[in-house]
Amino acid sequence: MLIQRLCVLGVGLIGGSLALALRRAGQCAEVIGCGRHEANLERAMALGVIDQAYLDPRQAVRGADMVVLAVPMGSMAAMLMAIQDDLHTDAVVTDVGSAKTSVLDAAGYVFGAPPAWFVPGHPLAGAERSGVEAARAELFEGRRVILTPTPQTHTAAVERVSLMWQATGAEVRQMDAQRHDELLAAVSHLPHMLAYALVEALAGWNAHPDALDYAAGGFRDFSRIASSDPVMWRDICLANRQPLLTAMQHFAEHYEALRVAIERADGERLEAIFSRAKRARDARFGSEQNGS
Amino acid sequence: MLIQRLCVLGVGLIGGSLALALRRAGQCAEVIGCGRHEANLERAMALGVIDQAYLDPRQAVRGADMVVLAVPMGSMAAMLMAIQDDLHTDAVVTDVGSAKTSVLDAAGYVFGAPPAWFVPGHPLAGAERSGVEAARAELFEGRRVILTPTPQTHTAAVERVSLMWQATGAEVRQMDAQRHDELLAAVSHLPHMLAYALVEALAGWNAHPDALDYAAGGFRDFSRIASSDPVMWRDICLANRQPLLTAMQHFAEHYEALRVAIERADGERLEAIFSRAKRARDARFGSEQNGS
Repeated sequence: MLIQRLCVLGVGLIGGSLALALRRAGQCAEVIGCGRHEANLERAMALGVIDQAYLDPRQAVRGADMVVLAVPMGSMAAMLMAIQDDLHTDAVVTDVGSAKTSVLDAAGYVFGAPPAWFVPGHPLAGAERSGVEAARAELFEGRRVILTPTPQTHTAAVERVSLMWQATGAEVRQMDAQRHDELLAAVSHLPHMLAYALVEALAGWNAHPDALDYAAGGFRDFSRIASSDPVMWRDICLANRQPLLTAMQHFAEHYEALRVAIERADGERLEAIFSRAKRARDARFGSEQNGS
Repeated sequence: MLIQRLCVLGVGLIGGSLALALRRAGQCAEVIGCGRHEANLERAMALGVIDQAYLDPRQAVRGADMVVLAVPMGSMAAMLMAIQDDLHTDAVVTDVGSAKTSVLDAAGYVFGAPPAWFVPGHPLAGAERSGVEAARAELFEGRRVILTPTPQTHTAAVERVSLMWQATGAEVRQMDAQRHDELLAAVSHLPHMLAYALVEALAGWNAHPDALDYAAGGFRDFSRIASSDPVMWRDICLANRQPLLTAMQHFAEHYEALRVAIERADGERLEAIFSRAKRARDARFGSEQNGS
């Protein structure tokens, strides 16, 4: 068995689904959950996600051979600070945060340098929903998990975290934290900004206060990510500020090029842009023409 | 029965679904289909969507009491020109184009002024798919259809087109063409531009040529509308140019405000924007937290 005692700090969608997946795979003997709200921990117990619950992270991590930080981005440093003296000697610690440079910075701040037993990670799954009630063992199947170890991270620690995620059905990739942050800024954080900005723009539009009443199915899909947790996304923006600003600038240039083509009524150019985008999108996700 | 002989010019998703819905409702005795491609018309016959097929629109409209123009935006003027001498004296003509001022302009160009028997219309349904194979009788159930008659349009003609759409299960609204075009630019055309521009920006990004490989479920939903037909969207952009440019400018202002909040690391402002957007989005479509 891969993990004897798993400690999940923050038992929500991601932490909860990880516990369920590892149990289902028979790779985890015991799950300890830790959170700030007793009611949530009781739900997690009732749902069979965790075996024991603690409000105090220092108690929770004792004896755990794998510790997963599934807390908000803004709490990483404080959490590492809290648990440092109570970690088992052989414990491997990983996290699931959406930005990785800032997590390494937090670990560096607490320990002087990111510790060799800390493996930053990010499963690309489940952004819109949240809460342990939404947790399910299949959440990571076929999804990617990105690990961003430093040259100082122990190979054995990286290997253990890799095996853990593979046991959930995920595909594990390694890259440096900066590259992760630039990629995620582009494919995840930027689209969220577009969706939030669009809904905000339409909801508060004086000229057409009822605009959203006319929004149909396409808009519903497009704006689904604007239903994500505002506090989580505030933290992601702050944690991944510079790569996100770069991605937003990159988008703005393409948006402006499209605007100019429309202004000039340049049909040829518009068709070329739309065709390239459709080809790229269909190559990644399959054509929606034949059903989604 | 509402319609004795329905003539659908352009037998694709919208025209085909309308025919199926009216037949199912028992409101249409006979359906004549017209298109440029024999193979498509044969498929429409085989699928039971139409009873007779013509390649020549002038033959197709003869004897029809309801004529529906479901052709590309760019072909409206030419089609009206083609059929004008062969329309039945009592025929009502309507269209399904995504921009309405340009359709009224086309009708004005052909007839001097938009004829009293022409009722511009737009069902808000089914943008991503296309083709008669995707047609289904339920497509318009619960969807909105906007009619944009002018003060010169016959009330009886508007009434007949309203009843036709109501028979499909749609909810019919009337407004002036300019307002329709501004609303649709905002809630439909603008999101398409954002999705196309985003996919185009990421697909051609030299710094991260594999960016789209890391795009997950949220991106899939967000970018679904970038899978729409490039030629149709080129035509919509050209037909609804000015309202679309206004909507794009309106979005750009909100996007810039968001960018500035990120640049300033203004967490309070970010949370306020995201919360407002989430509330507005969930009020329209329901919260995605509890499943989509």
